[in-house]
Amino acid sequence: MAFADQHHRAAPLELQADDFRTLGYQMVDAIADFLASLPQRPVAPGKTPSEIRNLLHSQDPLPEDGADAERLLGETAKLLFENSTFNGHPRFLGYITSSAAPIGALGDLLAASVNPNVGAGGLSPMATEIEAQTVRWIAELLGYPVDGGGLMVSGGNMANFTGFLAARKARASWDVRKAGMRDSRLRVYASNETHTWIQKAADLFGLGTDAIRWLPTDAGQRMDTAALRQAIAQDRANGDEPFMVVGTAGSVSTGAVDPLPEIAAICRESNLWFHVDGAYGAPAAALPDAPDDLKGLREADSLAVDPHKWLYAPLEAGCILVRDASKLLDAFSYHPIYYHFDSEQESFINYYEYGLQNSRGFRALKVWLALRQVGRNGYVQMMTEDIRLMQALYRLADEHPELEAATHNLSITTLRYVPAGLQPGTEAVGEYLNNLNEALLTNLQNGGEVFLSNAVVGGRFLLRACVVNFRTSSADIHALPEIIVRAGRALDDQMRPDALR
Amino acid sequence: MAFADQHHRAAPLELQADDFRTLGYQMVDAIADFLASLPQRPVAPGKTPSEIRNLLHSQDPLPEDGADAERLLGETAKLLFENSTFNGHPRFLGYITSSAAPIGALGDLLAASVNPNVGAGGLSPMATEIEAQTVRWIAELLGYPVDGGGLMVSGGNMANFTGFLAARKARASWDVRKAGMRDSRLRVYASNETHTWIQKAADLFGLGTDAIRWLPTDAGQRMDTAALRQAIAQDRANGDEPFMVVGTAGSVSTGAVDPLPEIAAICRESNLWFHVDGAYGAPAAALPDAPDDLKGLREADSLAVDPHKWLYAPLEAGCILVRDASKLLDAFSYHPIYYHFDSEQESFINYYEYGLQNSRGFRALKVWLALRQVGRNGYVQMMTEDIRLMQALYRLADEHPELEAATHNLSITTLRYVPAGLQPGTEAVGEYLNNLNEALLTNLQNGGEVFLSNAVVGGRFLLRACVVNFRTSSADIHALPEIIVRAGRALDDQMRPDALR
Repeated sequence: MAFADQHHRAAPLELQADDFRTLGYQMVDAIADFLASLPQRPVAPGKTPSEIRNLLHSQDPLPEDGADAERLLGETAKLLFENSTFNGHPRFLGYITSSAAPIGALGDLLAASVNPNVGAGGLSPMATEIEAQTVRWIAELLGYPVDGGGLMVSGGNMANFTGFLAARKARASWDVRKAGMRDSRLRVYASNETHTWIQKAADLFGLGTDAIRWLPTDAGQRMDTAALRQAIAQDRANGDEPFMVVGTAGSVSTGAVDPLPEIAAICRESNLWFHVDGAYGAPAAALPDAPDDLKGLREADSLAVDPHKWLYAPLEAGCILVRDASKLLDAFSYHPIYYHFDSEQESFINYYEYGLQNSRGFRALKVWLALRQVGRNGYVQMMTEDIRLMQALYRLADEHPELEAATHNLSITTLRYVPAGLQPGTEAVGEYLNNLNEALLTNLQNGGEVFLSNAVVGGRFLLRACVVNFRTSSADIHALPEIIVRAGRALDDQMRPDALR
Repeated sequence: MAFADQHHRAAPLELQADDFRTLGYQMVDAIADFLASLPQRPVAPGKTPSEIRNLLHSQDPLPEDGADAERLLGETAKLLFENSTFNGHPRFLGYITSSAAPIGALGDLLAASVNPNVGAGGLSPMATEIEAQTVRWIAELLGYPVDGGGLMVSGGNMANFTGFLAARKARASWDVRKAGMRDSRLRVYASNETHTWIQKAADLFGLGTDAIRWLPTDAGQRMDTAALRQAIAQDRANGDEPFMVVGTAGSVSTGAVDPLPEIAAICRESNLWFHVDGAYGAPAAALPDAPDDLKGLREADSLAVDPHKWLYAPLEAGCILVRDASKLLDAFSYHPIYYHFDSEQESFINYYEYGLQNSRGFRALKVWLALRQVGRNGYVQMMTEDIRLMQALYRLADEHPELEAATHNLSITTLRYVPAGLQPGTEAVGEYLNNLNEALLTNLQNGGEVFLSNAVVGGRFLLRACVVNFRTSSADIHALPEIIVRAGRALDDQMRPDALR
């Protein structure tokens, strides 16, 4: 426990430069080999929790003594390469987690090494400015005003929460921060295709989920704006306080885009805060042929977008953009007595005043590097290709006698397996098809050939493919129908009730 | 915009294995050189926001086209190495941001490369189990029950928020999640030395800051428990609903530790949720000579601790521990229709049900690697040395004729510069000393020789040194008095009003 000498402390966690170099090279080698081998690996390991836990020795106690760093890192890399679900795999098409840009991983290495605390500008001068530039560039890419504000957050929930809280403060008629929600009759409007962040927000931030007005959707899973107008009018007549409407730009189930310009107009008329959840779909507003409904996100008071979705950043990278940066300060700023940042000279942005976090990592770096590596044109190219692939899958499913194409929006296509000779229409067949497709999804996820997730549309359990994956090729998509139908036939043989045979 | 061929997509963000290797080696080299050069660099760049913005070309628009990745990474590393405040520097003693373990940076590189989404076990089998083991090991290190639950979060605010929300759900007498805080008379108790997370929590989660009962502290900045008892009784008599007491294990200003066992006893008697904010100080409970007041954190219903503070992890790494994991599920779980995780077999933990986030990065890895690299004994050694250094600084200040030692707790020491011939005591001298020490802090922060922050205790503006830094040596601490006094004298010559000369 002694110091090595007065000037150099012997700390067990320190790595000398040469050791860091050796270990770093080995890790880079391991990752390079891993990335090259990805297409040959199963997408998911198909192991049970017990198998994973045994491999980890998960019940081992905290080690008393240290371990050799070289061996530790080598074994850890192997453990992860052999027992992970790879959203970087060309055939990972589940949920909305993208292939991560390799330059982003190098960005995370650099960020963790410099380790700026981007909570305050004085603690992270260059990192703070890079974050500010990143936020502005994201706004620019999406066609959102660049003279507003915003910041990086952990992901979609936190981005949407931040917008929600800005809205709550801006539109409540009393001092919510001091007095709380005791007198609240605030009401928020969202379609029933909205992601569960809206339940969490209403719950956590003191409105309660009863304060959500759920609006129906049309056949394309888009918000029914006539119902929106009606609900606002009725709540006002009842003495409730409408304060915020949530539009979705790329719904989690089917990628549907709400009629944003129409919602914006209603918000303007009714003096409501217009928030857009573009966690997934907002980047597609950058495409030259983006529909006007999507481009309407530029009218939002706040806009959530997740660079770790369609900007292909490694987790975690979410972003909230606001039209008026002062609304974030109004909602979040406190000035603790123990913070001293020079206020006499021109000042840095102190991000701790703009959101929920205090200490903050440098998650902007990986996004900024990728934006610079490929520019706007690179993103337009990659997103365009993702969309084309899902158009192709829709066509393939539509043409296949045992597949039923259901929806296509942005880079999400849904479909289901319908065995030959089985006619949808009756309740019994509908129920069987749902059970069959749900079991099929489990088998596909465990099988390792492809990773899909699901959507439920009009009572139908659907297989859902989402490409936010610059590694997915046309060949990967053309292989899907055979994989699905092969697995579907095998299950149908086992599962079909006699009554339907 | 064409595919390279049907099987390989030409994506501008992709890096081939050889390119990744080359760029990775270069980045590792740059970081190794940087780490070796840290002690010779200024702790902070001392540049104005304008100078930083000019270096970045911060007003440049989003690039249309891409850039050469090698040049981009090289320039970016240089920009950060030359324009950052380095909490990894041996003389960084500000706030509570630690020197980051180099193995943690390699962990972040690996985590971003495998890129598991640790929101759901099926998307991150091994990463989820490593997170579970990390959380359990942290509990074990701190002497907290290991059969509870918890998860990694972004930092102290989020860890404390998570505990607060679990308490709110567990103790409110109605369904807060559904009905909101409209009928709330919930009251939370905290000392006036509590970090601002408590204002943010009461504000954001719908109680309002008026619901906080601020308790006075004793001469050691520790909660006055007689006042706590009295406040609870009085609120109950008024028909309010006490639900939660916050104890602090290592206050942000002076490192004070509240009398946790006594607070725990009051919470048991009064059926209140006992939350401990140990973001900074909780790891010191692992020390063999930890005082009973600190060890009392084992009685908490929820305990926040930040591995990116005294476990020396790179940002971001916070952790919330709870005695009863089901309280997190009760407070946070929703089951969206578009999530399909195989429920027939034994199941993985799905962390999205245990906290505020949905998609989650693999921030546990860097903490887990460091715990394995040095074991419990390594942490005990490093924390013990950090504390010794601050004991030494207190003595040095106490013995120096121009310094006034104010407080020492854990690894935080506060002191101030008092020019020779100036007697504290009158209001005019007190005001001058505050102005002088505040200006002195600014000069020290901009000067680059050492980075301190401040505390305000009993109306005195103090310089504050906090060592959560395994690179700080005895020599660094012995150099401090001369640096402070030299800068203090220069300022005193300029600033002292004639009336005090």
